[in-house]
Amino acid sequence: MQFTSEQRLDDDVLEREFTLGEIPGILWTPASVSAPLPLILVSPPPLGLRKAYPRLAARARHTAAQGFAAATIELPGSGDRPRSAAFEQARADLRRALAAGEPVTDEIVDALTLPLVDQSVPEWQAALDALLSLPEIGGPVGYSGGVISIGVRLAAVEPRISAAVLFAGSFVPRTIFEEARQVTIPLHVLLQWDDEDNDRQMALDLFDAFGSKEKTLHANMGGHTGVPQFAGEEGGRFFARHLK
Amino acid sequence: MQFTSEQRLDDDVLEREFTLGEIPGILWTPASVSAPLPLILVSPPPLGLRKAYPRLAARARHTAAQGFAAATIELPGSGDRPRSAAFEQARADLRRALAAGEPVTDEIVDALTLPLVDQSVPEWQAALDALLSLPEIGGPVGYSGGVISIGVRLAAVEPRISAAVLFAGSFVPRTIFEEARQVTIPLHVLLQWDDEDNDRQMALDLFDAFGSKEKTLHANMGGHTGVPQFAGEEGGRFFARHLK
Repeated sequence: MQFTSEQRLDDDVLEREFTLGEIPGILWTPASVSAPLPLILVSPPPLGLRKAYPRLAARARHTAAQGFAAATIELPGSGDRPRSAAFEQARADLRRALAAGEPVTDEIVDALTLPLVDQSVPEWQAALDALLSLPEIGGPVGYSGGVISIGVRLAAVEPRISAAVLFAGSFVPRTIFEEARQVTIPLHVLLQWDDEDNDRQMALDLFDAFGSKEKTLHANMGGHTGVPQFAGEEGGRFFARHLK
Repeated sequence: MQFTSEQRLDDDVLEREFTLGEIPGILWTPASVSAPLPLILVSPPPLGLRKAYPRLAARARHTAAQGFAAATIELPGSGDRPRSAAFEQARADLRRALAAGEPVTDEIVDALTLPLVDQSVPEWQAALDALLSLPEIGGPVGYSGGVISIGVRLAAVEPRISAAVLFAGSFVPRTIFEEARQVTIPLHVLLQWDDEDNDRQMALDLFDAFGSKEKTLHANMGGHTGVPQFAGEEGGRFFARHLK
């Protein structure tokens, strides 16, 4: 893990860009740190860190101001990372099915999602290794994202993650439903009730499938990017309850 | 409206019992009031004020400590108020259907709910008249309850109510679904996901039916009475956003 730049935001938050091998990432921490910090991994939406930066950074500054470290890495195939031909094919198939009003088959959903999950999860684990080796970061660790299938797999397999905020809002392969039953950490799931890109019933079924004893679903009105500010703040309080 | 007793709770909350005609009620206010207070009508569950008192009073003390007045009245047929033979018959029919594993018919749900709604809503409106005539109460007014069909009707017909926290957890007549479409105030709906007495899909359908532009559903694990403390606090913040 190599830091490539740093800047102060608002005087009280330090933003550092880094690379982890070929993967770019950003770490936000309070400008002054007296004890090792709890960490929140903030998984971006699959549109690239550069495009997602304004919303990610606004959230991360708020998170750092509350005494957390927050870190994100670029997803495979996003930003400047190499695209996979198979993924682009699956995305074209999805668009064609949606435009034709045809059902989105399991094959399309699997091709769109599973290779991304398979590649991402070890990358987040490597990022976690590197971040937890920094003296200013001590854990516990939360995960907030992004592509919900990545969050499900990571919550199921990575014991260092203690709590997760997940955004219902993308197609979920059947196999991920099975993995959801293995998840036992506290979950806070956000659902945009009228999300034009989301299958509401699938999101409710996935929430039902999680094995966690403490799981909360917060559904709000508005489209895919319309999560109200108060809903973001409730996610922050969820992490404060579980990571502090 | 006649006050029949008063006591201080924790030094900083004043609890006053009152009667409104034949209907008993309780009003909680901060012990010292400098400006007219916003008001939250707290509708009890249909088990009588005396049995509901510990949970109602704990919530109301918290509410009063945040600068609200909170008031409740006994529902028709609850506590010492006269029971209706038709309601008792409907309740017996419901129990028989549930015990036999038979479907709960629209007739049973209507008989169980609609007379209660028809009688309750004007009573809450009369209570509102009386409470708003007190110098220490000025509004705006929120409603928090209880039997969700009463809340739906009241939110649809009473323009002095500005925001409502509703508890999904009882059978809802079809006609109430139609009234839900007329509701336009901000809503915060609590659903116990594994509530043994509740039809989850009916609760989700009712949430979907509300006409409000701002509506939030918070689903948590646990049974009918297992609403977690943090969920109650989120309801308090919802009222603080809309009534202050």
